[in-house]
Amino acid sequence: MAVAKAVDDLTKALRRLPGVGPKTAQRFVFQLLARDRKGASDIANALHNAVESVRHCNQCNNFSESPVCNICNSPARDRSQICVVETPADLNSFEEAGVYRGLYFVLMGKISPMDGIGPDDLNIDELLEVLQTNPVNEVILAMNITLEGDATADYLSELIAERGLKITRLARGLPLGGELEYMDKGTLIEAFHRRVPT
Amino acid sequence: MAVAKAVDDLTKALRRLPGVGPKTAQRFVFQLLARDRKGASDIANALHNAVESVRHCNQCNNFSESPVCNICNSPARDRSQICVVETPADLNSFEEAGVYRGLYFVLMGKISPMDGIGPDDLNIDELLEVLQTNPVNEVILAMNITLEGDATADYLSELIAERGLKITRLARGLPLGGELEYMDKGTLIEAFHRRVPT
Repeated sequence: MAVAKAVDDLTKALRRLPGVGPKTAQRFVFQLLARDRKGASDIANALHNAVESVRHCNQCNNFSESPVCNICNSPARDRSQICVVETPADLNSFEEAGVYRGLYFVLMGKISPMDGIGPDDLNIDELLEVLQTNPVNEVILAMNITLEGDATADYLSELIAERGLKITRLARGLPLGGELEYMDKGTLIEAFHRRVPT
Repeated sequence: MAVAKAVDDLTKALRRLPGVGPKTAQRFVFQLLARDRKGASDIANALHNAVESVRHCNQCNNFSESPVCNICNSPARDRSQICVVETPADLNSFEEAGVYRGLYFVLMGKISPMDGIGPDDLNIDELLEVLQTNPVNEVILAMNITLEGDATADYLSELIAERGLKITRLARGLPLGGELEYMDKGTLIEAFHRRVPT
């Protein structure tokens, strides 16, 4: 291509972001180099800094700059509950909802044979050790309601069941604001089968 | 938020990319820090490098690492034609199509009152100087077929007309593979009004 090599290199590098194809990468490069060079430097510095300083919490496996993260360190959290989630984003959603005061464990993924991710690629040994060393009496399997999420929850459920702990999963049914007319068939079937007495 | 500060900083920085909201930024951060730290470093280095080394070509205003870019420097290009485009991506599209052997001028934007971009924010003085100092006899106004693109072409056309140069624009009509049944009304109207004798 006839364009500057540094521009080509940057376009190629940005394509490593998930879901970013050649056209989007080109748009990012144009924005950063023609309109927002300060933004380009800020992103570069934030990346360098994160790569240098972000590790995983020894206990919950979430991103953390200290060996043990703020949540695991907090005396205010209930140590008898562990909520297992797929990603840090899922953990953030719970924290923003403010519904939960126990501890977490972040798998950093889900069982997904299509992507070549099996149980060994998740941090399940660490999870089992957390269950061993803490006064846990409930494990909440808060996977996404997807094929892979369900498979991951099934796998963990079987593994943890041997330890005699209470295992729960998030409720399934109609979301708030859900209108029957527009609901997908699968959700409607689940909501019907799981109907509860009033 | 309870998560590591470096993660928050990176998420915020990535939101400066066009079209990237909080959820997408979070997904980028997860991918880079949990799965592809090499990618994170590569992007950071490519950004630093591009910010350091990429300037604008003195003649065509495209991104360039040298004062004058490869295209403007090439003896193989026809100096009697200047194709004016909005962005480097548009220039790349022409180069990939291989249809054009003249020179370019890259405006690095378009007139867009909604975004506060007027004629003074484009590099029109530079364009006029290029027209002054080169043996140009045709200016091709290759703006996008959008409201802003048309406004920009109209503005340039009026400005350049005073110089007695031949001014052309890209043809409008049905794209290859265009099926009338699925074509938008505006395109169909243009194609009809601009119909040509066979």
